[in-house]
Amino acid sequence: MKRIYLITPGPSAVPSFIREALSKELIHHRTEEFRQILKEVCVGLKDIFCTKNPVVIFSSSGTGAMEAGVANFFSPQDKVLVINGGKFGERWRDIAKIYNLQVIELKLEEGCAPLISEVKAILDKEKDIKGVLTTLCETSTATVYDIEGMGKILKDKNAILIVDAISGLGQDKLLSDEWGVDVVVSASQKGLMLPPGLGFLSISEKAKDFLKNSKLPRYYFDLNKALKSYEKDDTPFTPSVSLIVGLEKAIKVIKEEGLEKRWEKFAKLSMATREAAKTLGLEIFSKSPSSSVTAIVSPSNIKASELVKKLRKDWGLSIAAGQDELKDKIFRIAHMGWVNQDDLIVCFSLLEKALRDLGYSFKLGSSLQRFQEVFYG
Amino acid sequence: MKRIYLITPGPSAVPSFIREALSKELIHHRTEEFRQILKEVCVGLKDIFCTKNPVVIFSSSGTGAMEAGVANFFSPQDKVLVINGGKFGERWRDIAKIYNLQVIELKLEEGCAPLISEVKAILDKEKDIKGVLTTLCETSTATVYDIEGMGKILKDKNAILIVDAISGLGQDKLLSDEWGVDVVVSASQKGLMLPPGLGFLSISEKAKDFLKNSKLPRYYFDLNKALKSYEKDDTPFTPSVSLIVGLEKAIKVIKEEGLEKRWEKFAKLSMATREAAKTLGLEIFSKSPSSSVTAIVSPSNIKASELVKKLRKDWGLSIAAGQDELKDKIFRIAHMGWVNQDDLIVCFSLLEKALRDLGYSFKLGSSLQRFQEVFYG
Repeated sequence: MKRIYLITPGPSAVPSFIREALSKELIHHRTEEFRQILKEVCVGLKDIFCTKNPVVIFSSSGTGAMEAGVANFFSPQDKVLVINGGKFGERWRDIAKIYNLQVIELKLEEGCAPLISEVKAILDKEKDIKGVLTTLCETSTATVYDIEGMGKILKDKNAILIVDAISGLGQDKLLSDEWGVDVVVSASQKGLMLPPGLGFLSISEKAKDFLKNSKLPRYYFDLNKALKSYEKDDTPFTPSVSLIVGLEKAIKVIKEEGLEKRWEKFAKLSMATREAAKTLGLEIFSKSPSSSVTAIVSPSNIKASELVKKLRKDWGLSIAAGQDELKDKIFRIAHMGWVNQDDLIVCFSLLEKALRDLGYSFKLGSSLQRFQEVFYG
Repeated sequence: MKRIYLITPGPSAVPSFIREALSKELIHHRTEEFRQILKEVCVGLKDIFCTKNPVVIFSSSGTGAMEAGVANFFSPQDKVLVINGGKFGERWRDIAKIYNLQVIELKLEEGCAPLISEVKAILDKEKDIKGVLTTLCETSTATVYDIEGMGKILKDKNAILIVDAISGLGQDKLLSDEWGVDVVVSASQKGLMLPPGLGFLSISEKAKDFLKNSKLPRYYFDLNKALKSYEKDDTPFTPSVSLIVGLEKAIKVIKEEGLEKRWEKFAKLSMATREAAKTLGLEIFSKSPSSSVTAIVSPSNIKASELVKKLRKDWGLSIAAGQDELKDKIFRIAHMGWVNQDDLIVCFSLLEKALRDLGYSFKLGSSLQRFQEVFYG
């Protein structure tokens, strides 16, 4: 019987007190009892999103909420700018294209964040851009973007800022209202410590005007329906009751610890993770590393996918390899949601053992020592 | 502390052994372990759907899978026939209209099933109909439709039969392949004994040809992506891991008991429910009553919505009132999934007490006695 360590950038470990909530007897969703839970959950989500705007809940993965973030705000041939720095920027692009939008793509170099000056130059040139689709933490390269900077240049324009904060929310600082973010998309299985199955979307007043004029087809993800139900502490379709009951617990924990304190903690955890990796002679992949996940370049003679397989097979530790063409090049360690310093210490202990087994040379224990120094020092 | 009885037509009660599975430590979805579970679940779903066709899983409510059932098979201005006998027929109509299809609507009288001769007449007249969107059990009126009959008249036509079996699956007999059903849509929170959060869709070879030619936009619910992943025991987007782990248990239970035996059991449970209600002098609403749910007309001086509220408030028993304009007229008792004769006996015991409290006259215990006679006699 192996232990289970889930240190992947989604789904990440779900603590036992939330798993217990998931296993409670099911209640019906059209009851005062459930409406009360939904109401509290929505208030709690607003705090975590740092917004006074409504945050609606979809029973879907984060990708469903991303699709809602496109299908509700535009019309065919509308022009949007997609910041594409990896797998999830690509996803914005693909969704926008499927809905027949004109996509201007700012393609970034691997592991890089966009320069605000570049974004500004495109917006100055293409004056009819109606929306910017970007990412808080591009999970595929573990890169955090300057959302505040993008908000500033979009504030007085007739365009909305739509941010995929699926993996970043809760770890990477995001002041949605203060920074002028119109739509924030997220999901349950990362910073919120739940299993996958819930998608979230916040919507600003400015975005509501775009919603009014949008002519794209959608039903399940229609925000008019979702907002109408939201006003009555309800959902348009049967919600994932058990996950929402679990979410109530997760929100309590985050509130107790404090969002700001958690941002600081994850910033420190990510720094300790990077320093520990560097101590092993490994390179950090991202030029703008996120507080949610760290991407590490695998030693040249060790395929990242093999390393990840070995960790899972031998000790039950799940971290993630890169996706698509980065599959063998990088591996990714999450520090999000429930994952903390204890998990990361175990992670580096087993990572050292695996690297040693695979013939990589370094001083045994050095990454643990470095992690300790940076985190507790 | 009140007991919880969930005898609504979705979500219905989730047994403890499934709730325990939901609370297990989360595993990652891109692992051999999860792929094995997914594979077994998909085989099990095929058996329950009575099909050899692929059954794909969406992380969504049933409505999401319904939307997939429209958005993947047609193009703008395609003509479809919608059988509309209530709330869920209306939903087919609304989705089809949003995707700019030409909708021919066969509007049924309340509580009635469609006459196959009527359906045939429409198909004979409107030769360019590309699809028939219908329901196995129209939950809002507790009415089962003759899907076999519809399959027969569609078999040699260039049109596909798409059936919403969300509440019916597992209780109302459905031989998808034998009857020529091309697309069956269902969900987790009814006959499959799980919390809400999973949608299912089966797709025939004929429907795959329609998929090839469809020009409607969709991303999260795109079947090309879903089928490609299906071949590799995978999902295109992060699946609801915990619910799928629970589904494995549910499928085992259904398999052990046997699908045919369960159809017989629910037919008997529904008959006993109807007879027990009639003994109280109450009228059955549907002219073609389903094995999944029974709709009962509330006594003229008792609002169904008040009766339902009282049962929940006083004894923790959830049954459902009618929806929309039927809210005060009917109440609905489910016999689906985990709900069995013991639950229904308790249900009638409390229903009698509530009706008595609200001033309705009948012989106390008579519905229990009648239920016993019909079910065990």
